[in-house]
Amino acid sequence: MRKGDLTPDRDRVTEEHELQETRFSPETERNKNARQNQREEDDEGEESVEGIFESREVPSWTKQLTVRAFVVSFALSILFSFIVMKLNLTTGIIPSLNVSAGLLGFFFVKTWTKMLHKSGLLKQPFTRQENTVIQTCVVASSGIAFSGGFGTYLFAMSERIANHSGDAARGVKDPSLGWIIAFLFVVSFLGLFSVVPLRKIMIIDFKLTYPSGTATAHLINSFHTPQGAKLAKEQVRVLGKFFSLSFLWGFFQWFFTAGENCGFHSFPTFGLRAYQYKFYFDFSATYVGVGMICPYIINISLLLGGILSWGLMWPLIETRKGDWFPSDVDSSSMNGLQAYKVFIAVAMILGDGVYNFCKVLSRTLSGLFKQIRGEASCRTSLSREEEPPASPLTPKISYDDQRRTRFFLKDQIPSWFAGGGYVLIAAVSIAVLPQMFDQLRWYYILVIYVFAPVLAFCNAYGAGLTDWSLASTYGKLAIFTIGAWAGSEHGGVLAGLAACGVMMNIVSTASDLTQDFKTGYLTLSSPRAMFVSQVIGTAMGCVVSPCVFWLFYKAFDDLGLPNSKYPAPFATVYRSMAKLGVEGVSSLPSDCLVLCYAFFGFAILINVVKDGLGNRWGRFVPLPMAMAIPFFLGPYFAIDMCVGSLILFVWERLDAPKAEAFATAVASGLICGDGIWTLPSSVLAIAGVEPPICMKFLSSETNHRVDKFLQGSS
Amino acid sequence: MRKGDLTPDRDRVTEEHELQETRFSPETERNKNARQNQREEDDEGEESVEGIFESREVPSWTKQLTVRAFVVSFALSILFSFIVMKLNLTTGIIPSLNVSAGLLGFFFVKTWTKMLHKSGLLKQPFTRQENTVIQTCVVASSGIAFSGGFGTYLFAMSERIANHSGDAARGVKDPSLGWIIAFLFVVSFLGLFSVVPLRKIMIIDFKLTYPSGTATAHLINSFHTPQGAKLAKEQVRVLGKFFSLSFLWGFFQWFFTAGENCGFHSFPTFGLRAYQYKFYFDFSATYVGVGMICPYIINISLLLGGILSWGLMWPLIETRKGDWFPSDVDSSSMNGLQAYKVFIAVAMILGDGVYNFCKVLSRTLSGLFKQIRGEASCRTSLSREEEPPASPLTPKISYDDQRRTRFFLKDQIPSWFAGGGYVLIAAVSIAVLPQMFDQLRWYYILVIYVFAPVLAFCNAYGAGLTDWSLASTYGKLAIFTIGAWAGSEHGGVLAGLAACGVMMNIVSTASDLTQDFKTGYLTLSSPRAMFVSQVIGTAMGCVVSPCVFWLFYKAFDDLGLPNSKYPAPFATVYRSMAKLGVEGVSSLPSDCLVLCYAFFGFAILINVVKDGLGNRWGRFVPLPMAMAIPFFLGPYFAIDMCVGSLILFVWERLDAPKAEAFATAVASGLICGDGIWTLPSSVLAIAGVEPPICMKFLSSETNHRVDKFLQGSS
Repeated sequence: MRKGDLTPDRDRVTEEHELQETRFSPETERNKNARQNQREEDDEGEESVEGIFESREVPSWTKQLTVRAFVVSFALSILFSFIVMKLNLTTGIIPSLNVSAGLLGFFFVKTWTKMLHKSGLLKQPFTRQENTVIQTCVVASSGIAFSGGFGTYLFAMSERIANHSGDAARGVKDPSLGWIIAFLFVVSFLGLFSVVPLRKIMIIDFKLTYPSGTATAHLINSFHTPQGAKLAKEQVRVLGKFFSLSFLWGFFQWFFTAGENCGFHSFPTFGLRAYQYKFYFDFSATYVGVGMICPYIINISLLLGGILSWGLMWPLIETRKGDWFPSDVDSSSMNGLQAYKVFIAVAMILGDGVYNFCKVLSRTLSGLFKQIRGEASCRTSLSREEEPPASPLTPKISYDDQRRTRFFLKDQIPSWFAGGGYVLIAAVSIAVLPQMFDQLRWYYILVIYVFAPVLAFCNAYGAGLTDWSLASTYGKLAIFTIGAWAGSEHGGVLAGLAACGVMMNIVSTASDLTQDFKTGYLTLSSPRAMFVSQVIGTAMGCVVSPCVFWLFYKAFDDLGLPNSKYPAPFATVYRSMAKLGVEGVSSLPSDCLVLCYAFFGFAILINVVKDGLGNRWGRFVPLPMAMAIPFFLGPYFAIDMCVGSLILFVWERLDAPKAEAFATAVASGLICGDGIWTLPSSVLAIAGVEPPICMKFLSSETNHRVDKFLQGSS
Repeated sequence: MRKGDLTPDRDRVTEEHELQETRFSPETERNKNARQNQREEDDEGEESVEGIFESREVPSWTKQLTVRAFVVSFALSILFSFIVMKLNLTTGIIPSLNVSAGLLGFFFVKTWTKMLHKSGLLKQPFTRQENTVIQTCVVASSGIAFSGGFGTYLFAMSERIANHSGDAARGVKDPSLGWIIAFLFVVSFLGLFSVVPLRKIMIIDFKLTYPSGTATAHLINSFHTPQGAKLAKEQVRVLGKFFSLSFLWGFFQWFFTAGENCGFHSFPTFGLRAYQYKFYFDFSATYVGVGMICPYIINISLLLGGILSWGLMWPLIETRKGDWFPSDVDSSSMNGLQAYKVFIAVAMILGDGVYNFCKVLSRTLSGLFKQIRGEASCRTSLSREEEPPASPLTPKISYDDQRRTRFFLKDQIPSWFAGGGYVLIAAVSIAVLPQMFDQLRWYYILVIYVFAPVLAFCNAYGAGLTDWSLASTYGKLAIFTIGAWAGSEHGGVLAGLAACGVMMNIVSTASDLTQDFKTGYLTLSSPRAMFVSQVIGTAMGCVVSPCVFWLFYKAFDDLGLPNSKYPAPFATVYRSMAKLGVEGVSSLPSDCLVLCYAFFGFAILINVVKDGLGNRWGRFVPLPMAMAIPFFLGPYFAIDMCVGSLILFVWERLDAPKAEAFATAVASGLICGDGIWTLPSSVLAIAGVEPPICMKFLSSETNHRVDKFLQGSS
């Protein structure tokens, strides 16, 4: 059909919007209704994407796995590991980088094949299946940078965070390259094996939507149509331009950062008093870009949370000094105001988590129930929200679906292989992990591994419906249960954190792989190729991510400390949660506890109101999870992100089609450029090269003193 | 004719280009060839602009002078006085503000009449004659801000500049509101009277081109066609937007300027070492705007001069410390390196001035000679470069020319009035000036007034041919002749500077008024109205300019000191010239003298090469006058201006029609916004309000010391 040729723009635009709405962060809510996407898929069935690609041969699964694909994947996985790590360690907000990964993967291989084509050495053309393999591999690899917990549970074990939380006595384990890599290798592959046998049920039988996976597939499909390739080229050009700008901007900023509180990221844009309460624009290209990708409501929620906490509550609580908290402690001590900041944020995150866990679980169960009942009654494979077929005996199956199903079922992965793999790795894991963490008994791990496949399935199913991976919520569950089981005396804090890591890796990779199976389904890629690519990508991630983290850890001495450039806020949050799990709420000051209860309830209330109002008005209600993040960090990055929103908003008003086509490319360029600048910047820091200039901001009064001092001493 | 309706865009664009090429600065060269413009005027004759306006009644001269016109003029003259004053006191480079004046005048009166029209109170529609009256009045008024010498001769008399030049003993006269206003009233009106009787000869008989006056007339004519008005409205919108941006940027910058060397204008963009040699981008919206208006070659010349001096010569001469100049003097002392900076710049400016004086004078004389010979031989009024008429007895006179000539000759200004006025004011002036300046004998003034009308005519004629007003060159002539005549013992420095003021005011207003007569001629405005408007404008300027200067003088304590925000570079240059005139070259160190001779010769050589190469290659040769300015000031503003050039260059590549239509509006907005911000900023300074923050730039090493000091003292 010709129509398909003419519409990739519209398709892509919608997909990108989709992506923006959904992949905001693994930490955060995305109660995106699947209906819209479902409808699109139906449309697509009518338009027949596969009609366009009919003439192109689909390579066998071994041919889909090319060397060049993995070389490109490796390069991109380093790039994205840097970016994700930077985001992990600054705010913990990670936008979807799928579009950038797709764009850049396409760009690199296309350039590569073009060069080879010219030199006459090209043996195999670049197919969308190969593109999907790259995409899958990069997502798997950079996924480890998130689920590896470098900004959360893993770093929470370190002495630095423990000291800062004032509970080093409860056990610490400092990061070191060796055990981190070993740990990741042992825990990261289980998720893959646990979900492989269920792929047919999820994709073919249940026809789950997987918005992110679908969107990525649309993107890749559109790249490989002639018009889509042209637009993609243009987008890559824009991405490249903003990449360079952002990189150079990072480079320029570096020169002015000799010493603490120097440089653009300490710019008191709204005055010194506002700066004290972290209201300032810090000129970070990354967060302006992140703000352009995240939906408006997220950015507004962040800003509201920032105003509520740093603009209102903290200044008010500060006046209670000596009453609500001891007046002789340091402002960053966990006995002072800092405790309020962390635990109120934790309460709000937990409130939101509990609500959404219940919501997604109930939807998962009711969905499952309907599936099974429907399956039983008419034996057709319909998704939950699809209209009833015209005739119950001959359900309408489009050409696209037929073709896709055929290719999806062609290359099988035997169930014995998946099951055997799972048991084997679990056994190794049970043997190895207690060696690493004394506090983690082998039977804790066994229990986790018994329940994990169920939770992995739940998470993969939930992500299929809502696109929301609850990985971090399952991780928190492990912290509380295993932590409480081990108890305070037997290193419950560390056991809880380690258990969190085990759990998070399983459920996170499970949902990621299912998303990729969906992408593969829609691009006629072989599930076997997907699986291999995911395994290789995970292996890459298990090596690359710890190395990248190690670079940061060695380069920035103040990594993890509040008010530093890399405060790693969630490390403190996770440690505090583990402490809470082990000790109970009694360890908190009573005023703080009351506030925590209030905000726990507040988070649930907002969610109830949001869902109660429906999509029309509910979308204007802020998200509690997003509101909680600046409680701890301060609203400066929220201001950056709102600047990004503002730019996008104005751009959309001025030239909507262009904004929709290129906003993600611009944002990705900004994020990637600044992200990759952290590589040379951390190398410079390790090499001990100090920036030459300090751009300092002094109050008028201090400035007079300094001027006098400098005149006197020179 | 319809054709005229469709082409205002093209016309305006060319005119603006014209303006850019010419009105760069009263201080600087503009050897613009008049041919282009001549051609245009002929084209215009064929297209008949007046045909379009035929149906509109031309109001009588008294009706052209409306109260609203002068109210608007007064407001604009304050705005432009601020801008010109700021430019005077920062670098002395003043771009043409005619287009902004025209745009803003049109905008204000148009808004005014629209409002009145709606309320039913409008008695008289807004005509292009009225527009011309405003334009004339504003130019006359803000012209005083330049020719009043606040950045040159007048401020050169002050004790501050004298002290800094190390020759306070040679006489000082500190500025004070009273005598400055009186001085300006006495000397500013003579130029008007001296040139009035010659207007018919210049405009009708010689048909001189006056590129600036012609361009302004085109602009005003185009505003009053329907399509032109639409474009003008759009331009005003753009101007307003950039005006606000620039104003807000100035406001934002202010917050960070507590103390010396604080804020964006001390930003070491290229590092601290480059900053030491004044290579940095100082984020000045004004000079970015000025750079967009000035032609590329001016900006390149400035940058080249800056690199030659601050990048090469000064660092080299510095190594001769103790040899070429005493090693124990302050870097800003006139006995040290500063003398090299000032006198080499003076030598180059004088070399350029001498060359161009000779060139323009020879062209003036040969032009005059040809005119008179031509007049004698066929008694027709042809311009020098017009083709010979088809028949010598019936020269082709277009409809436009006929109509314009008729209106131009309708309202006469009697010669007895002009002559009587001149003699009367001269007499008053001769009586008053020696009271103000003891050093200025009455016979010096008498001599000046005898020669002045001749020089005024020369300048007006030269400006008609080349658009270059040599006012400051005539002023320098007066410095040297009267200074030498008075002699060192009898206060020759002050006498020379005062004489410079008298001379400059006469010749400058003479050429301005003739330009305005040309504008009036092309817009059918009455010469009588022009004259009255110029008189009123001059009177406004005589009051407004000193007041604005007074505000600056009171607000900024370090006005006139090198390295301050307002170094008033030409004040030092003028005082040095006066010293040179009185004492001769013997007062300079011998190494400096050799360099001065070399650069004097270099300036003449470059000019010879430039003119020798012709327009094709000559336009790539830099201008010595422009190269000399950064010798003294440093290249920072040249970098700003090159940024402006770069923006324009890129814009022209991306969207040439838009760039051509709106570049001047953007530039004017940037200049006006930043310029008007100096009003509140100086009011704040006078009120003693200190900015709250200092953005300081410290070397890494100093920063460590400061951090230690601050930790210790807090």
